[in-house]
Amino acid sequence: MSVGLVVEEQIRVRYAETDALGVVYYANHFVWFEVGRVSFLREIGLDFATAEREGISFVVAEATCRYLAPAHFDERLIVRTWIEDIGQRSLTLSYQIVNHDTGQTIATGKTIQVFIDIGNHETTNIPVKARELFERALSD
Amino acid sequence: MSVGLVVEEQIRVRYAETDALGVVYYANHFVWFEVGRVSFLREIGLDFATAEREGISFVVAEATCRYLAPAHFDERLIVRTWIEDIGQRSLTLSYQIVNHDTGQTIATGKTIQVFIDIGNHETTNIPVKARELFERALSD
Amino acid sequence: MSVGLVVEEQIRVRYAETDALGVVYYANHFVWFEVGRVSFLREIGLDFATAEREGISFVVAEATCRYLAPAHFDERLIVRTWIEDIGQRSLTLSYQIVNHDTGQTIATGKTIQVFIDIGNHETTNIPVKARELFERALSD
Amino acid sequence: MSVGLVVEEQIRVRYAETDALGVVYYANHFVWFEVGRVSFLREIGLDFATAEREGISFVVAEATCRYLAPAHFDERLIVRTWIEDIGQRSLTLSYQIVNHDTGQTIATGKTIQVFIDIGNHETTNIPVKARELFERALSD
Repeated sequence: MSVGLVVEEQIRVRYAETDALGVVYYANHFVWFEVGRVSFLREIGLDFATAEREGISFVVAEATCRYLAPAHFDERLIVRTWIEDIGQRSLTLSYQIVNHDTGQTIATGKTIQVFIDIGNHETTNIPVKARELFERALSD
Repeated sequence: MSVGLVVEEQIRVRYAETDALGVVYYANHFVWFEVGRVSFLREIGLDFATAEREGISFVVAEATCRYLAPAHFDERLIVRTWIEDIGQRSLTLSYQIVNHDTGQTIATGKTIQVFIDIGNHETTNIPVKARELFERALSD
Repeated sequence: MSVGLVVEEQIRVRYAETDALGVVYYANHFVWFEVGRVSFLREIGLDFATAEREGISFVVAEATCRYLAPAHFDERLIVRTWIEDIGQRSLTLSYQIVNHDTGQTIATGKTIQVFIDIGNHETTNIPVKARELFERALSD
Repeated sequence: MSVGLVVEEQIRVRYAETDALGVVYYANHFVWFEVGRVSFLREIGLDFATAEREGISFVVAEATCRYLAPAHFDERLIVRTWIEDIGQRSLTLSYQIVNHDTGQTIATGKTIQVFIDIGNHETTNIPVKARELFERALSD
Protein backbone atom coordinates (compact mmCIF):
# COMPACT_ATOMS: atom_id res chain seq x y z
CA MET A 1 0.00 0.00 0.00
CA SER A 2 1.39 3.38 -0.99
CA VAL A 3 0.17 6.01 1.39
CA GLY A 4 2.78 8.67 0.72
CA LEU A 5 4.25 10.65 3.56
CA VAL A 6 3.54 9.30 7.04
CA VAL A 7 4.26 11.69 9.90
CA GLU A 8 4.85 10.33 13.38
CA GLU A 9 4.24 12.16 16.61
CA GLN A 10 4.96 10.90 20.14
CA ILE A 11 2.37 11.05 22.90
CA ARG A 12 2.67 10.10 26.55
CA VAL A 13 -0.66 9.13 28.11
CA ARG A 14 -1.74 11.64 30.76
CA TYR A 15 -3.61 10.69 33.89
CA ALA A 16 -6.26 13.20 32.83
CA GLU A 17 -6.91 11.04 29.77
CA THR A 18 -7.82 7.90 31.70
CA ASP A 19 -11.28 7.01 33.00
CA ALA A 20 -12.74 4.88 35.76
CA LEU A 21 -12.14 1.72 33.72
CA GLY A 22 -8.42 2.38 34.13
CA VAL A 23 -7.91 2.97 30.42
CA VAL A 24 -7.93 5.99 28.13
CA TYR A 25 -11.40 7.47 27.64
CA TYR A 26 -12.62 6.98 24.08
CA ALA A 27 -12.98 10.67 23.12
CA ASN A 28 -9.31 11.35 23.80
CA HIS A 29 -8.17 9.36 20.80
CA PHE A 30 -9.67 12.15 18.68
CA VAL A 31 -7.53 14.67 20.56
CA TRP A 32 -4.52 12.56 19.66
CA PHE A 33 -5.65 12.44 16.03
CA GLU A 34 -5.65 16.25 16.15
CA VAL A 35 -2.11 16.23 17.53
CA GLY A 36 -1.11 13.99 14.62
CA ARG A 37 -2.99 16.15 12.13
CA VAL A 38 -1.32 19.36 13.28
CA SER A 39 2.05 17.66 13.11
CA PHE A 40 1.32 16.36 9.60
CA LEU A 41 0.23 19.74 8.27
CA ARG A 42 3.22 21.48 9.84
CA GLU A 43 5.50 18.87 8.26
CA ILE A 44 4.16 19.39 4.73
CA GLY A 45 4.49 23.13 5.14
CA LEU A 46 0.83 24.14 5.22
CA ASP A 47 0.70 27.67 6.54
CA PHE A 48 -2.62 28.25 8.26
CA ALA A 49 -1.96 31.93 8.81
CA THR A 50 -1.49 32.44 5.07
CA ALA A 51 -4.53 30.33 4.21
CA GLU A 52 -6.71 32.28 6.63
CA ARG A 53 -5.47 35.60 5.24
CA GLU A 54 -6.67 34.32 1.84
CA GLY A 55 -10.07 33.71 3.40
CA ILE A 56 -9.94 29.91 3.51
CA SER A 57 -10.28 27.66 6.52
CA PHE A 58 -11.26 24.06 7.05
CA VAL A 59 -13.32 22.11 9.54
CA VAL A 60 -13.73 18.45 10.46
CA ALA A 61 -16.88 17.12 8.79
CA GLU A 62 -16.57 13.51 9.91
CA ALA A 63 -14.43 11.56 12.35
CA THR A 64 -14.16 7.84 13.04
CA CYS A 65 -12.09 5.78 15.43
CA ARG A 66 -11.76 2.00 15.76
CA TYR A 67 -10.48 0.93 19.17
CA LEU A 68 -8.26 -2.14 18.95
CA ALA A 69 -6.54 -2.22 22.34
CA PRO A 70 -6.76 -0.09 25.47
CA ALA A 71 -4.14 2.54 26.27
CA HIS A 72 -3.02 3.11 29.86
CA PHE A 73 -1.56 5.87 31.96
CA ASP A 74 2.05 6.78 31.24
CA GLU A 75 2.34 4.59 28.14
CA ARG A 76 4.24 6.10 25.26
CA LEU A 77 2.33 6.06 22.00
CA ILE A 78 3.03 7.01 18.41
CA VAL A 79 0.41 8.69 16.25
CA ARG A 80 0.95 8.09 12.54
CA THR A 81 -0.86 10.41 10.12
CA TRP A 82 -1.13 10.28 6.33
CA ILE A 83 -3.39 11.39 3.51
CA GLU A 84 -6.08 8.91 2.57
CA ASP A 85 -7.79 10.95 -0.13
CA ILE A 86 -7.76 14.40 -1.74
CA GLY A 87 -11.20 15.49 -2.90
CA GLN A 88 -12.39 18.62 -4.68
CA ARG A 89 -13.38 20.35 -1.46
CA SER A 90 -12.20 17.90 1.15
CA LEU A 91 -9.15 16.11 2.50
CA THR A 92 -9.29 12.73 4.21
CA LEU A 93 -6.59 11.91 6.72
CA SER A 94 -5.92 8.48 8.23
CA TYR A 95 -4.39 7.74 11.60
CA GLN A 96 -2.84 4.82 13.38
CA ILE A 97 -1.98 4.91 17.07
CA VAL A 98 0.53 2.32 18.23
CA ASN A 99 2.20 1.58 21.54
CA HIS A 100 5.76 2.83 21.25
CA ASP A 101 7.24 0.01 23.31
CA THR A 102 5.23 -3.04 22.22
CA GLY A 103 4.28 -1.97 18.69
CA GLN A 104 0.69 -2.99 19.40
CA THR A 105 -1.92 -1.02 17.47
CA ILE A 106 -4.18 0.86 19.89
CA ALA A 107 -6.52 2.48 17.38
CA THR A 108 -7.01 3.46 13.77
CA GLY A 109 -9.10 6.31 12.48
CA LYS A 110 -10.02 8.81 9.85
CA THR A 111 -11.11 12.43 9.67
CA ILE A 112 -12.60 14.24 6.70
CA GLN A 113 -11.79 17.94 6.55
CA VAL A 114 -13.87 20.27 4.39
CA PHE A 115 -12.61 23.61 3.11
CA ILE A 116 -14.64 26.68 3.96
CA ASP A 117 -14.79 30.19 2.54
CA ILE A 118 -14.51 32.31 5.69
CA GLY A 119 -16.53 35.07 4.02
CA ASN A 120 -19.76 33.17 3.38
CA HIS A 121 -19.20 29.97 5.41
CA GLU A 122 -19.82 27.87 2.30
CA THR A 123 -17.67 24.92 1.30
CA THR A 124 -15.10 25.82 -1.30
CA ASN A 125 -12.42 24.15 -3.45
CA ILE A 126 -9.12 23.30 -1.83
CA PRO A 127 -6.86 26.30 -2.49
CA VAL A 128 -4.34 25.61 -5.28
CA LYS A 129 -1.29 25.93 -3.06
CA ALA A 130 -2.67 23.64 -0.36
CA ARG A 131 -3.62 21.08 -3.03
CA GLU A 132 -0.07 21.05 -4.30
CA LEU A 133 1.25 20.36 -0.81
CA PHE A 134 -1.25 17.53 -0.30
CA GLU A 135 -0.44 15.95 -3.67
CA ARG A 136 3.25 16.11 -3.01
CA ALA A 137 2.75 14.42 0.37
CA LEU A 138 0.62 11.71 -1.22
CA SER A 139 3.24 10.94 -3.89
CA ASP A 140 6.16 10.90 -1.42
CA MET B 1 -38.26 4.62 10.05
CA SER B 2 -38.90 2.62 13.20
CA VAL B 3 -36.06 3.04 15.63
CA GLY B 4 -37.82 2.02 18.79
CA LEU B 5 -37.24 3.91 21.98
CA VAL B 6 -35.48 7.28 21.60
CA VAL B 7 -34.15 8.78 24.83
CA GLU B 8 -33.48 12.51 25.01
CA GLU B 9 -30.99 14.22 27.28
CA GLN B 10 -30.40 17.96 27.63
CA ILE B 11 -26.94 19.48 27.44
CA ARG B 12 -25.84 23.08 27.91
CA VAL B 13 -22.61 23.87 26.09
CA ARG B 14 -19.79 24.64 28.54
CA TYR B 15 -17.08 27.18 27.88
CA ALA B 16 -14.59 24.37 28.47
CA GLU B 17 -16.01 22.61 25.42
CA THR B 18 -15.29 25.42 22.96
CA ASP B 19 -12.03 25.92 21.07
CA ALA B 20 -10.16 28.82 19.48
CA LEU B 21 -12.47 28.71 16.46
CA GLY B 22 -15.27 29.82 18.80
CA VAL B 23 -17.19 26.56 18.38
CA VAL B 24 -17.32 23.25 20.22
CA TYR B 25 -14.17 21.16 19.78
CA TYR B 26 -14.84 18.04 17.72
CA ALA B 27 -13.93 15.44 20.37
CA ASN B 28 -16.54 16.75 22.78
CA HIS B 29 -19.41 15.46 20.68
CA PHE B 30 -18.28 11.97 21.72
CA VAL B 31 -18.54 13.01 25.36
CA TRP B 32 -22.11 14.08 24.65
CA PHE B 33 -22.79 10.75 22.94
CA GLU B 34 -21.64 9.12 26.18
CA VAL B 35 -24.05 11.30 28.17
CA GLY B 36 -26.83 10.17 25.83
CA ARG B 37 -25.71 6.54 26.05
CA VAL B 38 -25.71 6.52 29.85
CA SER B 39 -29.13 8.12 29.87
CA PHE B 40 -30.44 5.55 27.37
CA LEU B 41 -29.13 2.57 29.32
CA ARG B 42 -30.50 3.96 32.59
CA GLU B 43 -33.88 4.47 30.91
CA ILE B 44 -34.15 0.87 29.68
CA GLY B 45 -33.17 -0.39 33.11
CA LEU B 46 -29.75 -1.81 32.38
CA ASP B 47 -28.03 -2.32 35.70
CA PHE B 48 -24.26 -2.09 35.24
CA ALA B 49 -23.52 -3.09 38.80
CA THR B 50 -25.41 -6.35 38.32
CA ALA B 51 -23.84 -6.99 34.93
CA GLU B 52 -20.35 -6.45 36.32
CA ARG B 53 -21.05 -8.77 39.24
CA GLU B 54 -21.93 -11.38 36.62
CA GLY B 55 -18.54 -10.78 35.04
CA ILE B 56 -19.68 -8.94 31.93
CA SER B 57 -18.70 -5.48 30.80
CA PHE B 58 -18.66 -3.68 27.48
CA VAL B 59 -16.37 -1.29 25.69
CA VAL B 60 -16.68 1.01 22.70
CA ALA B 61 -15.13 -0.68 19.68
CA GLU B 62 -15.93 2.00 17.12
CA ALA B 63 -17.23 5.56 17.16
CA THR B 64 -18.20 7.92 14.36
CA CYS B 65 -19.51 11.47 14.27
CA ARG B 66 -20.70 13.56 11.34
CA TYR B 67 -20.58 17.29 12.06
CA LEU B 68 -23.44 19.15 10.39
CA ALA B 69 -23.42 22.54 12.12
CA PRO B 70 -21.23 24.12 14.80
CA ALA B 71 -22.37 24.35 18.42
CA HIS B 72 -21.54 27.43 20.49
CA PHE B 73 -21.04 28.34 24.13
CA ASP B 74 -24.18 28.37 26.27
CA GLU B 75 -26.43 26.84 23.61
CA ARG B 76 -28.90 24.27 24.82
CA LEU B 77 -28.74 21.00 22.94
CA ILE B 78 -30.65 17.75 22.95
CA VAL B 79 -28.90 14.41 22.54
CA ARG B 80 -31.19 11.71 21.13
CA THR B 81 -30.06 8.10 21.54
CA TRP B 82 -31.55 4.90 20.13
CA ILE B 83 -30.56 1.37 19.22
CA GLU B 84 -29.40 0.94 15.65
CA ASP B 85 -28.57 -2.76 15.78
CA ILE B 86 -28.32 -5.69 18.20
CA GLY B 87 -25.59 -8.17 17.25
CA GLN B 88 -24.45 -11.42 18.80
CA ARG B 89 -21.70 -9.78 20.82
CA SER B 90 -22.26 -6.12 20.06
CA LEU B 91 -24.76 -3.30 20.32
CA THR B 92 -24.84 -0.35 17.93
CA LEU B 93 -26.27 2.91 19.22
CA SER B 94 -27.14 5.93 17.09
CA TYR B 95 -27.17 9.55 18.18
CA GLN B 96 -28.53 12.84 16.94
CA ILE B 97 -27.60 16.14 18.55
CA VAL B 98 -29.96 19.02 17.84
CA ASN B 99 -30.10 22.63 18.96
CA HIS B 100 -32.89 22.83 21.52
CA ASP B 101 -34.04 26.28 20.43
CA THR B 102 -33.70 26.18 16.64
CA GLY B 103 -34.17 22.46 16.02
CA GLN B 104 -31.09 22.49 13.79
CA THR B 105 -29.15 19.22 13.71
CA ILE B 106 -25.63 19.73 15.02
CA ALA B 107 -24.30 16.22 14.58
CA THR B 108 -25.21 12.59 14.08
CA GLY B 109 -23.18 9.60 15.15
CA LYS B 110 -22.85 5.98 16.04
CA THR B 111 -20.98 3.85 18.54
CA ILE B 112 -20.51 0.10 18.50
CA GLN B 113 -20.20 -1.49 21.92
CA VAL B 114 -18.72 -4.94 22.33
CA PHE B 115 -19.41 -7.20 25.30
CA ILE B 116 -16.43 -8.45 27.26
CA ASP B 117 -15.92 -11.28 29.72
CA ILE B 118 -14.16 -9.52 32.59
CA GLY B 119 -12.41 -12.77 33.52
CA ASN B 120 -10.49 -13.37 30.31
CA HIS B 121 -10.97 -10.04 28.47
CA GLU B 122 -12.43 -11.89 25.47
CA THR B 123 -15.54 -10.77 23.62
CA THR B 124 -18.63 -12.63 24.72
CA ASN B 125 -22.31 -12.91 23.85
CA ILE B 126 -24.66 -10.20 25.07
CA PRO B 127 -26.01 -11.49 28.42
CA VAL B 128 -29.59 -12.80 28.11
CA LYS B 129 -31.11 -10.19 30.39
CA ALA B 130 -29.38 -7.28 28.67
CA ARG B 131 -30.49 -8.63 25.28
CA GLU B 132 -34.10 -8.68 26.45
CA LEU B 133 -33.85 -5.05 27.51
CA PHE B 134 -32.30 -4.05 24.17
CA GLU B 135 -34.94 -5.94 22.16
CA ARG B 136 -37.74 -4.39 24.15
CA ALA B 137 -36.30 -0.92 23.53
CA LEU B 138 -35.96 -1.62 19.82
CA SER B 139 -39.59 -2.76 19.51
CA ASP B 140 -40.99 0.16 21.51
CA MET C 1 -22.02 34.68 57.39
CA SER C 2 -23.86 36.81 54.87
CA VAL C 3 -22.79 35.89 51.38
CA GLY C 4 -25.68 37.42 49.46
CA LEU C 5 -27.15 35.62 46.50
CA VAL C 6 -26.18 31.96 46.14
CA VAL C 7 -26.93 30.40 42.77
CA GLU C 8 -27.23 26.62 42.48
CA GLU C 9 -26.60 24.57 39.38
CA GLN C 10 -27.05 20.82 38.99
CA ILE C 11 -24.33 18.62 37.50
CA ARG C 12 -24.37 14.92 36.76
CA VAL C 13 -20.90 13.36 36.77
CA ARG C 14 -19.89 12.18 33.30
CA TYR C 15 -17.79 9.11 32.68
CA ALA C 16 -15.41 11.38 30.76
CA GLU C 17 -14.74 13.22 34.00
CA THR C 18 -13.48 10.20 35.92
CA ASP C 19 -9.90 8.95 35.98
CA ALA C 20 -8.12 5.66 36.59
CA LEU C 21 -8.54 6.04 40.35
CA GLY C 22 -12.28 5.67 39.77
CA VAL C 23 -13.04 9.21 40.89
CA VAL C 24 -13.39 12.57 39.18
CA TYR C 25 -10.08 13.95 37.90
CA TYR C 26 -9.00 17.04 39.84
CA ALA C 27 -9.01 19.53 36.96
CA ASN C 28 -12.68 18.91 36.24
CA HIS C 29 -13.81 20.65 39.41
CA PHE C 30 -12.66 23.89 37.76
CA VAL C 31 -14.89 23.12 34.78
CA TRP C 32 -17.77 22.76 37.23
CA PHE C 33 -16.82 26.05 38.88
CA GLU C 34 -17.13 27.60 35.42
CA VAL C 35 -20.59 26.06 35.00
CA GLY C 36 -21.55 27.61 38.35
CA ARG C 37 -19.97 30.95 37.41
CA VAL C 38 -21.85 31.17 34.11
CA SER C 39 -25.07 30.29 35.88
CA PHE C 40 -24.42 32.93 38.56
CA LEU C 41 -23.67 35.69 36.05
CA ARG C 42 -26.72 34.79 33.97
CA GLU C 43 -28.86 34.89 37.13
CA ILE C 44 -27.74 38.39 38.15
CA GLY C 45 -28.35 39.64 34.62
CA LEU C 46 -24.80 40.29 33.49
CA ASP C 47 -24.89 40.66 29.73
CA PHE C 48 -21.51 39.65 28.29
CA ALA C 49 -22.45 40.69 24.77
CA THR C 50 -23.16 44.24 25.96
CA ALA C 51 -20.01 44.35 28.06
CA GLU C 52 -17.88 43.19 25.16
CA ARG C 53 -19.42 45.78 22.85
CA GLU C 54 -18.34 48.36 25.43
CA GLY C 55 -14.82 46.97 25.16
CA ILE C 56 -14.64 45.23 28.51
CA SER C 57 -13.96 41.59 29.17
CA PHE C 58 -12.64 39.62 32.13
CA VAL C 59 -10.32 36.71 32.66
CA VAL C 60 -9.56 34.34 35.51
CA ALA C 61 -6.40 35.51 37.28
CA GLU C 62 -6.34 32.91 40.03
CA ALA C 63 -8.19 29.69 40.83
CA THR C 64 -8.11 27.42 43.87
CA CYS C 65 -9.89 24.21 44.78
CA ARG C 66 -9.88 22.26 48.03
CA TYR C 67 -10.89 18.62 47.56
CA LEU C 68 -12.84 17.29 50.52
CA ALA C 69 -14.37 14.07 49.20
CA PRO C 70 -14.17 12.22 45.89
CA ALA C 71 -16.97 12.43 43.32
CA HIS C 72 -17.95 9.37 41.29
CA PHE C 73 -19.51 8.58 37.94
CA ASP C 74 -23.23 9.31 37.65
CA GLU C 75 -23.51 11.11 40.99
CA ARG C 76 -25.67 14.19 41.01
CA LEU C 77 -23.92 17.25 42.38
CA ILE C 78 -24.89 20.82 43.15
CA VAL C 79 -22.53 23.69 42.44
CA ARG C 80 -23.20 26.73 44.65
CA THR C 81 -21.72 30.06 43.55
CA TRP C 82 -21.63 33.41 45.34
CA ILE C 83 -19.61 36.62 45.45
CA GLU C 84 -16.78 36.60 47.95
CA ASP C 85 -15.40 40.05 47.22
CA ILE C 86 -15.79 42.99 44.85
CA GLY C 87 -12.51 44.80 44.19
CA GLN C 88 -11.68 47.86 42.11
CA ARG C 89 -10.68 45.80 39.09
CA SER C 90 -11.51 42.29 40.19
CA LEU C 91 -14.32 40.05 41.36
CA THR C 92 -13.81 37.06 43.64
CA LEU C 93 -16.32 34.22 43.41
CA SER C 94 -16.61 31.33 45.83
CA TYR C 95 -17.91 27.86 45.12
CA GLN C 96 -19.11 24.86 47.03
CA ILE C 97 -19.80 21.53 45.36
CA VAL C 98 -22.02 19.14 47.30
CA ASN C 99 -23.43 15.71 46.61
CA HIS C 100 -27.10 16.22 45.78
CA ASP C 101 -28.23 13.04 47.48
CA THR C 102 -26.06 12.86 50.59
CA GLY C 103 -25.37 16.55 51.14
CA GLN C 104 -21.68 15.77 51.56
CA THR C 105 -19.33 18.57 50.50
CA ILE C 106 -17.12 17.43 47.64
CA ALA C 107 -15.05 20.57 47.18
CA THR C 108 -14.83 24.27 47.85
CA GLY C 109 -13.06 26.83 45.76
CA LYS C 110 -12.48 30.36 44.63
CA THR C 111 -11.71 32.19 41.41
CA ILE C 112 -10.52 35.77 41.01
CA GLN C 113 -11.65 37.45 37.82
CA VAL C 114 -9.88 40.56 36.55
CA PHE C 115 -11.48 43.07 34.19
CA ILE C 116 -9.67 43.82 30.97
CA ASP C 117 -9.88 46.62 28.44
CA ILE C 118 -10.17 44.71 25.16
CA GLY C 119 -8.47 47.57 23.33
CA ASN C 120 -5.14 47.58 25.14
CA HIS C 121 -5.32 44.33 27.14
CA GLU C 122 -4.71 46.26 30.37
CA THR C 123 -6.66 45.68 33.55
CA THR C 124 -9.44 48.19 34.04
CA ASN C 125 -12.06 49.15 36.61
CA ILE C 126 -15.18 47.05 36.84
CA PRO C 127 -17.71 48.77 34.56
CA VAL C 128 -20.32 50.77 36.52
CA LYS C 129 -23.28 48.67 35.42
CA ALA C 130 -21.56 45.36 36.21
CA ARG C 131 -20.53 46.73 39.62
CA GLU C 132 -24.15 47.56 40.40
CA LEU C 133 -25.21 44.01 39.55
CA PHE C 134 -22.45 42.53 41.74
CA GLU C 135 -23.30 44.79 44.67
CA ARG C 136 -26.97 43.98 44.43
CA ALA C 137 -26.15 40.25 44.45
CA LEU C 138 -23.88 40.67 47.47
CA SER C 139 -26.55 42.49 49.46
CA ASP C 140 -29.32 40.03 48.59
CA MET D 1 15.96 30.67 46.89
CA SER D 2 16.91 27.03 47.29
CA VAL D 3 14.19 24.84 45.90
CA GLY D 4 16.20 21.70 45.34
CA LEU D 5 15.63 19.61 42.25
CA VAL D 6 13.58 21.27 39.49
CA VAL D 7 12.29 18.93 36.80
CA GLU D 8 11.32 20.33 33.41
CA GLU D 9 8.83 18.85 31.01
CA GLN D 10 7.97 20.11 27.54
CA ILE D 11 4.38 20.66 26.43
CA ARG D 12 3.03 21.73 23.06
CA VAL D 13 -0.37 23.42 23.31
CA ARG D 14 -3.10 21.34 21.70
CA TYR D 15 -6.04 22.81 19.84
CA ALA D 16 -8.26 20.84 22.23
CA GLU D 17 -6.87 22.92 25.09
CA THR D 18 -7.95 26.29 23.68
CA ASP D 19 -11.32 27.92 24.24
CA ALA D 20 -13.51 30.46 22.45
CA LEU D 21 -11.35 33.32 23.76
CA GLY D 22 -8.55 31.92 21.58
CA VAL D 23 -6.38 31.05 24.58
CA VAL D 24 -5.89 27.96 26.73
CA TYR D 25 -8.88 27.20 28.96
CA TYR D 26 -8.05 27.73 32.63
CA ALA D 27 -8.62 24.15 33.84
CA ASN D 28 -6.00 22.77 31.47
CA HIS D 29 -3.13 24.33 33.40
CA PHE D 30 -3.91 21.80 36.13
CA VAL D 31 -3.55 19.00 33.58
CA TRP D 32 -0.13 20.40 32.74
CA PHE D 33 0.75 20.55 36.44
CA GLU D 34 -0.09 16.84 36.54
CA VAL D 35 2.21 16.21 33.60
CA GLY D 36 4.94 18.04 35.49
CA ARG D 37 4.15 16.16 38.70
CA VAL D 38 4.35 12.75 37.05
CA SER D 39 7.62 13.72 35.42
CA PHE D 40 9.01 14.94 38.76
CA LEU D 41 8.05 11.78 40.63
CA ARG D 42 9.46 9.58 37.87
CA GLU D 43 12.70 11.58 38.00
CA ILE D 44 13.20 11.15 41.75
CA GLY D 45 12.51 7.44 41.43
CA LEU D 46 9.18 7.20 43.22
CA ASP D 47 7.70 3.84 42.35
CA PHE D 48 3.91 4.04 42.51
CA ALA D 49 3.45 0.34 41.93
CA THR D 50 5.58 -0.47 44.97
CA ALA D 51 3.88 2.17 47.10
CA GLU D 52 0.45 0.86 46.19
CA ARG D 53 1.49 -2.72 46.97
CA GLU D 54 2.43 -1.41 50.41
CA GLY D 55 -1.07 -0.02 50.73
CA ILE D 56 -0.25 3.67 50.37
CA SER D 57 -1.57 6.09 47.80
CA PHE D 58 -1.93 9.84 47.63
CA VAL D 59 -4.50 12.30 46.38
CA VAL D 60 -4.55 16.00 45.60
CA ALA D 61 -6.11 17.85 48.53
CA GLU D 62 -5.67 21.37 47.23
CA ALA D 63 -4.67 22.99 43.94
CA THR D 64 -4.04 26.61 43.01
CA CYS D 65 -3.05 28.34 39.79
CA ARG D 66 -2.17 31.99 39.14
CA TYR D 67 -2.57 32.96 35.49
CA LEU D 68 0.04 35.49 34.43
CA ALA D 69 -0.18 35.42 30.63
CA PRO D 70 -2.35 33.55 28.15
CA ALA D 71 -1.05 30.49 26.28
CA HIS D 72 -2.00 29.90 22.65
CA PHE D 73 -2.39 27.01 20.27
CA ASP D 74 0.85 25.35 19.13
CA GLU D 75 3.07 27.27 21.55
CA ARG D 76 5.80 25.25 23.20
CA LEU D 77 5.81 25.51 26.96
CA ILE D 78 7.98 24.23 29.77
CA VAL D 79 6.49 23.00 33.03
CA ARG D 80 8.91 23.27 35.95
CA THR D 81 8.11 21.24 39.08
CA TRP D 82 9.79 21.24 42.48
CA ILE D 83 9.05 20.43 46.10
CA GLU D 84 7.75 23.35 48.12
CA ASP D 85 7.23 21.55 51.42
CA ILE D 86 7.35 18.09 52.98
CA GLY D 87 4.81 17.65 55.76
CA GLN D 88 4.03 14.74 58.06
CA ARG D 89 1.26 13.43 55.85
CA SER D 90 1.47 15.73 52.87
CA LEU D 91 3.73 16.93 50.09
CA THR D 92 3.45 20.37 48.51
CA LEU D 93 4.64 20.74 44.94
CA SER D 94 5.15 24.04 43.12
CA TYR D 95 4.94 24.65 39.39
CA GLN D 96 5.96 27.29 36.92
CA ILE D 97 4.85 27.22 33.30
CA VAL D 98 6.92 29.31 30.92
CA ASN D 99 6.84 29.89 27.19
CA HIS D 100 9.73 27.91 25.73
CA ASP D 101 10.52 30.50 23.07
CA THR D 102 9.99 33.80 24.84
CA GLY D 103 10.72 32.77 28.42
CA GLN D 104 7.54 34.54 29.54
CA THR D 105 5.90 33.02 32.62
CA ILE D 106 2.42 31.78 31.75
CA ALA D 107 1.35 30.54 35.17
CA THR D 108 2.54 29.48 38.59
CA GLY D 109 0.81 27.05 40.89
CA LYS D 110 0.84 24.65 43.76
CA THR D 111 -0.72 21.33 44.65
CA ILE D 112 -0.88 19.69 48.07
CA GLN D 113 -0.88 15.90 48.00
CA VAL D 114 -2.05 13.93 51.01
CA PHE D 115 -1.01 10.34 51.70
CA ILE D 116 -3.77 7.80 52.13
CA ASP D 117 -3.92 4.33 53.62
CA ILE D 118 -5.67 2.36 50.87
CA GLY D 119 -7.11 -0.01 53.46
CA ASN D 120 -9.13 2.46 55.51
CA HIS D 121 -9.01 5.58 53.31
CA GLU D 122 -7.57 7.60 56.19
CA THR D 123 -4.65 9.99 55.84
CA THR D 124 -1.35 8.44 56.88
CA ASN D 125 2.29 9.41 57.30
CA ILE D 126 4.45 9.67 54.22
CA PRO D 127 6.08 6.22 53.84
CA VAL D 128 9.73 6.25 54.96
CA LYS D 129 11.13 5.44 51.54
CA ALA D 130 9.10 8.10 49.77
CA ARG D 131 10.13 10.66 52.41
CA GLU D 132 13.76 9.87 51.74
CA LEU D 133 13.27 10.48 48.04
CA PHE D 134 11.50 13.78 48.68
CA GLU D 135 14.16 14.99 51.11
CA ARG D 136 16.95 14.10 48.73
CA ALA D 137 15.18 16.04 45.96
CA LEU D 138 14.72 19.04 48.24
CA SER D 139 18.40 19.10 49.22
CA ASP D 140 19.67 18.71 45.67
